[in-house]
Amino acid sequence: MKPVKVGICGLGTVGGGTFNVLTRNTDSITARTGRQVIIEQVATRRGNPACDTSQTPVTTDIFDVAQNPDIDILVELIGGYDVAKDLILTAINNGKHVVTANKALIAEHGNEIFKAARENNVIVAYEAAVAGGIPVIKTLREGLAANDINWLAGIINGTGNFILTEMGDKNRPFEDVLQEAQELGYAEADPTFDVEGIDACHKLTIMASIAFGIPLQFNKAFTEGISQVTPGDIQYAEDFGYRIKHLGISRKTEQGIELRVHPALIPADRPMANINGVLNSVVINADAIGETMLVGPGAGSEPTASSVVADIIDIARNLETPASMPFPLGFHSDSMQPTEVLSVDDVECPYYLRIHVDDHPGVIRALSSVLDEYNINISALTQKAAREHDRHADVVILTETVKEAVMKQAVKKIEALEEVQSRVALIRVEAMA
Amino acid sequence: MKPVKVGICGLGTVGGGTFNVLTRNTDSITARTGRQVIIEQVATRRGNPACDTSQTPVTTDIFDVAQNPDIDILVELIGGYDVAKDLILTAINNGKHVVTANKALIAEHGNEIFKAARENNVIVAYEAAVAGGIPVIKTLREGLAANDINWLAGIINGTGNFILTEMGDKNRPFEDVLQEAQELGYAEADPTFDVEGIDACHKLTIMASIAFGIPLQFNKAFTEGISQVTPGDIQYAEDFGYRIKHLGISRKTEQGIELRVHPALIPADRPMANINGVLNSVVINADAIGETMLVGPGAGSEPTASSVVADIIDIARNLETPASMPFPLGFHSDSMQPTEVLSVDDVECPYYLRIHVDDHPGVIRALSSVLDEYNINISALTQKAAREHDRHADVVILTETVKEAVMKQAVKKIEALEEVQSRVALIRVEAMA
Repeated sequence: MKPVKVGICGLGTVGGGTFNVLTRNTDSITARTGRQVIIEQVATRRGNPACDTSQTPVTTDIFDVAQNPDIDILVELIGGYDVAKDLILTAINNGKHVVTANKALIAEHGNEIFKAARENNVIVAYEAAVAGGIPVIKTLREGLAANDINWLAGIINGTGNFILTEMGDKNRPFEDVLQEAQELGYAEADPTFDVEGIDACHKLTIMASIAFGIPLQFNKAFTEGISQVTPGDIQYAEDFGYRIKHLGISRKTEQGIELRVHPALIPADRPMANINGVLNSVVINADAIGETMLVGPGAGSEPTASSVVADIIDIARNLETPASMPFPLGFHSDSMQPTEVLSVDDVECPYYLRIHVDDHPGVIRALSSVLDEYNINISALTQKAAREHDRHADVVILTETVKEAVMKQAVKKIEALEEVQSRVALIRVEAMA
Repeated sequence: MKPVKVGICGLGTVGGGTFNVLTRNTDSITARTGRQVIIEQVATRRGNPACDTSQTPVTTDIFDVAQNPDIDILVELIGGYDVAKDLILTAINNGKHVVTANKALIAEHGNEIFKAARENNVIVAYEAAVAGGIPVIKTLREGLAANDINWLAGIINGTGNFILTEMGDKNRPFEDVLQEAQELGYAEADPTFDVEGIDACHKLTIMASIAFGIPLQFNKAFTEGISQVTPGDIQYAEDFGYRIKHLGISRKTEQGIELRVHPALIPADRPMANINGVLNSVVINADAIGETMLVGPGAGSEPTASSVVADIIDIARNLETPASMPFPLGFHSDSMQPTEVLSVDDVECPYYLRIHVDDHPGVIRALSSVLDEYNINISALTQKAAREHDRHADVVILTETVKEAVMKQAVKKIEALEEVQSRVALIRVEAMA
């Protein structure tokens, strides 16, 4: 069979890894694919000292690749929105298959991109967009295709998981650990995408679409970051038998699809509770399999390249038979359900509350009568002794399941109590059941 | 597109699950496949009260299905060797695609079956043969196809993992827990396949072939069961910071491929050390991704059916384009390497030794001079106080890495010492690095 010709746009971290993996493992990739995969062209402005491109045609204009009639598969690894989208649509319109690691673009413009791909009978593959090296798109779309999926939950941002792990292990505040993560290269100079959960939400949006057969609806997802979590919260949670993780959760309910990213307490004896550092992990709960968990590196040059190249190999096998590939979002486009995404106010879960109070008699009674008033049951409560020279205390409460809108009202009332000294810290509890 | 017609042979645990999942989730399966998947015929002698087959043609002769010209995909779920092999080869020769969960058959006769499939241009899929619901075949063959795989290690027998977990948690001896496992239905009346590691070795053989591009070589694998492990060993291992798991391990070395199933000490802080009960788990270490782990149910009716039906969906998408599917063992048959499987005598690893000794001065010196003689370094040693009314003690040793043949000689010499009261318990240590 004739070789498959690939053009790589962008030779940064992931692009460089892709170039090197394709080059280094060319023999085994050929043996697995049944045909040769050749890097026909690379588009890069700055080059990459880790890549020997001396044998490869290099251009500085990514659109050269999209226009190159010899290219079968364009690999978009430049990131960002506008130019990347333009590049991908140009490639699609020129009849090229596309591989991308661009989670933001897929989550926010995937519906449009997949429509163009369908009209042009080409494949757009994006395994690397979610959880880096972990083949979670393939697992959801193919491995678990027999299942009716109930829910999925993921630690899908390595930066956030590293920060929470360090905060807990070493009792260090968020800002401290963030700075270290930046020095180690785990966090960007502007860490907003990672610590505020936007990156995780992009990935969650994509997984939810495949799991539940709904269009991509990033703008309807709820996102809350980890900057308000304290080492004290992590310790209190531990005392109750929980770990705090930054989770992306999507669940099918009768009222609609939950789609939310936020810090959550999860039971410490769950395998996912022990996934630490920069590792990613996704748990999928479905009717036939029950539950399965994937763990692996969610970022990094070659781990992400592992997924990019896996997509290239899939496409290479299907180059002449693109209709044999799974649908891009798992379901036939005519079968996608415009199921409502549930407002976070309608989500029901147990809660963790940390309330900084004046430490005097009656405060517990005051707190519990507010919760009573809203029919919120307490499942655990501790009052932590006031520190020396301090007449204050932390009251920490785990509630039973309650609707978020109700909890918010109760919290507002608690914050209005005379004995309460500051904002109530509120973290959702995810039983993962 | 015209519907895909499936014939299910065998309506036992997995066959019944397959029938029910295909029936219950027919709408979403159609939406994911892009065409209808119909159960055209079922072959069963006894039926299955959990399945409503009133709308399905039922035969008592499985070969009716293999001869039925309307059947596109024959699903072999009868198990065993001779009849199952005959059935599958008949189906292949009649131009039918085949899905099977039969690990023993694939591990021992897969080379022949895949050759017949190649000659007849049909697909033989077997995701359910390894680790039940966990899509590990797809992960190795497609998700990690870009990688050069270094090693893989799996807890791939739920019965064995359940027994070891219970022995450790509750300090109960092997025979006791085995009996409970039999009562719970986790272990067969004849538990040999599970507890002696034969079942795990079938699965390991298949994974190793896909990982390393070698033919299936079940008869060259080394297998050791868990019946010699004691609750004391589990406790001593714990004291050293390890857990004991029944592992299947395959590793590429310069001398050949390691292919071995045996109890092993693994570091307690590895996520896999905390995979307990009937769960299965596979860790794969490879050059691009680094490391990834899959966890899930390794057996059971619907978890296994999840994989059977995933294979059916893959084939349904590729019904007219079977050449677009991955090669059955991952690599093009011309590219398979007849790499030597390493004799276990040539495997190198650290060891755990438990030596029951006369508790008197000089015994430690006697033991360590034997180890010295064979250049075996001790990395940890404890002597456990003799029990009351007993002048004996356990000396427990962790060694550094040593070749198995050398360790066996040393153990022989230790067992010949006057102070040594019984056979030395020897368990390999798997650093998973």
